[in-house]
Amino acid sequence: MQIAVLLYDRFTSLDAIGPYDTLGRLPGAEVVFVSQRPGPVRTDAGSLALVADKGLDEVTRPDIVIVPGGPHPEIEMANPVVLDWLRSVDATTTWTTSVCTGSLLLAAAGLLDGRRATSHWLFLDRLRAFGAEPTGERVVFDGKYVTAAGVSAGIDMGLTLLGRAAGDDVARTVQLMTEYDPQPPYDAGSPAKAPAELVARLRGVSLSEGSR
Amino acid sequence: MQIAVLLYDRFTSLDAIGPYDTLGRLPGAEVVFVSQRPGPVRTDAGSLALVADKGLDEVTRPDIVIVPGGPHPEIEMANPVVLDWLRSVDATTTWTTSVCTGSLLLAAAGLLDGRRATSHWLFLDRLRAFGAEPTGERVVFDGKYVTAAGVSAGIDMGLTLLGRAAGDDVARTVQLMTEYDPQPPYDAGSPAKAPAELVARLRGVSLSEGSR
Repeated sequence: MQIAVLLYDRFTSLDAIGPYDTLGRLPGAEVVFVSQRPGPVRTDAGSLALVADKGLDEVTRPDIVIVPGGPHPEIEMANPVVLDWLRSVDATTTWTTSVCTGSLLLAAAGLLDGRRATSHWLFLDRLRAFGAEPTGERVVFDGKYVTAAGVSAGIDMGLTLLGRAAGDDVARTVQLMTEYDPQPPYDAGSPAKAPAELVARLRGVSLSEGSR
Repeated sequence: MQIAVLLYDRFTSLDAIGPYDTLGRLPGAEVVFVSQRPGPVRTDAGSLALVADKGLDEVTRPDIVIVPGGPHPEIEMANPVVLDWLRSVDATTTWTTSVCTGSLLLAAAGLLDGRRATSHWLFLDRLRAFGAEPTGERVVFDGKYVTAAGVSAGIDMGLTLLGRAAGDDVARTVQLMTEYDPQPPYDAGSPAKAPAELVARLRGVSLSEGSR
């Protein structure tokens, strides 16, 4: 069982690490971080690099693929090397998954056509252009395609998929070992719960920047 | 404002990334990953390396220091180079923080003597040997020392400290952008909530392995 985590310039680190430290604990699984070119790949903030140990051409038949998001998905959505790789590995995966705007890469590769899917709340509507049906759920299963909402939702996706792949006992064990008993200090984690003016401000920033 | 995240061999990645993608979004802050020797540092599972851009000798006056944990804290607890660095930078930090067993490194450096602190639930009692008072809370403030419970608790710590350092509005903004509206698929994230036999099994593994 091989799990491949895709890295690309300016990905969001928690998008990748949430599933890595949950689903990646799947007993017997080999996890490999891959990118177009092997080596250090910088996060969105630029202050950290994760190392992709393998290039895309070295990882051709992963059982599970995880695609993290980032604030500038349009760059990889226009990268034929990445989209070709996603289509190629998807042909034989057991699960094809994404966190945050990673679903837009899957969608741009043509993998979510006619499927229910989610993304970061600021990008959710963009799924429609690729024939996907956006939903406001935190973790969405449609066949073998599993998409998670923004950033931290990858932890919930990782544990949920771990339960499906290895059973509830394994998933509960990982939840307890990662002490995932969340106690957010605020209740502003979704556009439905956050102050309306904050949501509007972020939507405005997003529109004016053309990115987030 | 400089935030230093300490890396060392076999750290747990989510311990570092939880605070990085929350507190690390502090406006105007520079985040730097540091380790005894700059370069790639492997996680506990070995399947991923994060890059420490700086050596300890290059980061001498961070405003905030973040110490992640890992399943084998005893190695760095006996590393005088790391402990000396922690003592040295602590002399001028605004906040000295840890996630998971990172608190045992702070404790071994003598920084938690007489202070309330937390750690991963399996390691909590070990704080006593260093004069600290263990508590079962998820995020513990004692003066400028902030310790978080196991692994995922670093997200709650990051947001809480972000609120203290930059105000509630900034912290809520980061919570919304990271869509931190957790919906764990199980309710087994603490020893008080998980099935008793699972807790006992993990305590047994911990005892028999002498580590976790």
